[in-house]
Amino acid sequence: MKVNGQHYRTIWINENDPTRIMIIDQRQLPHRFVVEEIRTVTEMATAIKDMHLRGAGLIGVAAGFGIYLAVVNTAPDDAIQEVIHAAGNQLMATRPTAVNLAWAVHLQWEVLQSENNREAIIQKALETALLTAEEDAAACAAIGQAGLPLIEALSSQKNGQPVNILTHCNAGWLAFVDHGSALAPVYAAHDKGIDVHVWVDETRPRNQGASLTAWELGMHGVPHTIIADNTGGHLMQHGMVDLVIVGTDRTTITGDVANKIGTYLKALAAKDNGVPFYVALPSSSFDWQMQDGIKDIEIEERNPDELKYMEGLCDGEIKKILVTPLGSPALNIGFDVTPARLVTGLITERGICRADKESILQLFPEKQKHG
Amino acid sequence: MKVNGQHYRTIWINENDPTRIMIIDQRQLPHRFVVEEIRTVTEMATAIKDMHLRGAGLIGVAAGFGIYLAVVNTAPDDAIQEVIHAAGNQLMATRPTAVNLAWAVHLQWEVLQSENNREAIIQKALETALLTAEEDAAACAAIGQAGLPLIEALSSQKNGQPVNILTHCNAGWLAFVDHGSALAPVYAAHDKGIDVHVWVDETRPRNQGASLTAWELGMHGVPHTIIADNTGGHLMQHGMVDLVIVGTDRTTITGDVANKIGTYLKALAAKDNGVPFYVALPSSSFDWQMQDGIKDIEIEERNPDELKYMEGLCDGEIKKILVTPLGSPALNIGFDVTPARLVTGLITERGICRADKESILQLFPEKQKHG
Repeated sequence: MKVNGQHYRTIWINENDPTRIMIIDQRQLPHRFVVEEIRTVTEMATAIKDMHLRGAGLIGVAAGFGIYLAVVNTAPDDAIQEVIHAAGNQLMATRPTAVNLAWAVHLQWEVLQSENNREAIIQKALETALLTAEEDAAACAAIGQAGLPLIEALSSQKNGQPVNILTHCNAGWLAFVDHGSALAPVYAAHDKGIDVHVWVDETRPRNQGASLTAWELGMHGVPHTIIADNTGGHLMQHGMVDLVIVGTDRTTITGDVANKIGTYLKALAAKDNGVPFYVALPSSSFDWQMQDGIKDIEIEERNPDELKYMEGLCDGEIKKILVTPLGSPALNIGFDVTPARLVTGLITERGICRADKESILQLFPEKQKHG
Repeated sequence: MKVNGQHYRTIWINENDPTRIMIIDQRQLPHRFVVEEIRTVTEMATAIKDMHLRGAGLIGVAAGFGIYLAVVNTAPDDAIQEVIHAAGNQLMATRPTAVNLAWAVHLQWEVLQSENNREAIIQKALETALLTAEEDAAACAAIGQAGLPLIEALSSQKNGQPVNILTHCNAGWLAFVDHGSALAPVYAAHDKGIDVHVWVDETRPRNQGASLTAWELGMHGVPHTIIADNTGGHLMQHGMVDLVIVGTDRTTITGDVANKIGTYLKALAAKDNGVPFYVALPSSSFDWQMQDGIKDIEIEERNPDELKYMEGLCDGEIKKILVTPLGSPALNIGFDVTPARLVTGLITERGICRADKESILQLFPEKQKHG
């Protein structure tokens, strides 16, 4: 996607030094566009944990590059398989809820375990990381095409009046390598000339909607309006939302959807008002083993200061302010789980299916053994 | 209630000069406790509109004092009935959703219309405003006693383990003259030694939960935890909420509840998880005419900058920061309407009733004529 007219992905190799990985430091958006260089697996783990980069797809790809950084920085005498193992565990410990992270680490482990030659391992780790990135971008492009007919149909029903799409958090290109999941159909529709408008949930406490989704939609010229997370239900009651599309950090084979905290509340409102509620995801975000999302998905708890303090622009500088009584405790839960019964459908790189095991496995029959 | 050990109400007459009204400037909380002097009806209208003070009950009482300020500041030759009429309209235009404001203005109009003597009008306007304030405080105290048995029963069921009560926005003593509506039963339970804990919704965009509810609970020593508005659904899914109590700005005779934007989403989650959802209100918050809350209650839209900018404490000063892209539009809807079917019950100064016309009129039979 484009930033001020120039094409960017969210992660790439330094063209002058292939042992360094470049990322966009998303903590500085929307106020500043800053590219950061990552040189070690520990720097990558910190970048993931402290959310220099975030988003289900992107943290998976970043973990793949993290393993590459671990091996490229070994000395010839290091026990390289132990380094690979430790690096994977270090990366997986950063954020527990998104399945893509574990998926990317396990892929590197599988590919690299049979190699002993250090140079070959470095080469293979790089190829795997690059392949993961390409697959992520390709899957998101395919999700865009798979979801496009939903928006086209609504546009026809409304005789070309703007299709109002509500989204929560950021599942745009900043959350993946390119295109995004939830926003991919929106970009596809907009690029095709369909009149779309996005209601952007602010997404407290980290404001990924207000800071990232609004920024990337604005950069691409997609009409949008930021709303407080509290607002979606009212808009749906008054016919102001035609479609909800969100992303996911982990979706069970039974169709339960872990996504940014607050998604469940929007799904309830969509159900109560007959608004279609879709979840867009590359297949790397499925958990093929898990049966009960509410019981079994580990939900990340983050530092309460993310809720008690807010960062923003003041007199040209990024400042942090306290917005609660200093002595009041806060609880910062990162995700919730929307039960499959509230999900109209899943938009994947292979097309749309219902949020149930039978329908999911029809699209991904090779996963049948796990069911 | 108490502030640093000293008893306060939210509005009172300057003891040295009865032509001036004192209020707590709630915009400065939780960081600073500032008392503001209001000298004219225009200052009072500004204080209501810009939310120096807010809350269904308090803005009603403040409007009553606003009329008093209008008449006390007249000159002997002024057309005093015209002044009263204009002042009422000026006050009612400040905030459309809460019914208490119109109720208090109409009460002053009714009381004052038959008087011609300026001194008698001033005296009556003051008496009416003071009576309204006393009735508000008394109604809230009674709401506390009416709601107390709900919490006592839950405490018994849990063998004295903490009763977890979720609330949205601020319907505490800061929203009334004293005690509060939603928080009145909480204070009553806490004061009786029952172990209670309050989940405080941050309540974006103006953060009344994080800044006001957390502050007043903290001042009174009630255990509480601030959460993002997105969090309640997850907590309910995991059995961490025993009871929801919220306030209301206008409740129809049919039991539809207008309250701070986002209340409807919490009511949906409560219903989905079998958590009792109560609305606490003095009878001055009923709209005895209105039948369909979602269709008919006027919903206030406020300045989008309340969403785009946030205020808080930075290096000992209150600073305002931008938290969105400067060019992204935002929509700031103040309230939503929770349909009666999602409301377990209404806690009033006369006891608890179901959220339907029959049950409401059983408690308030004198309103039968309006039904």
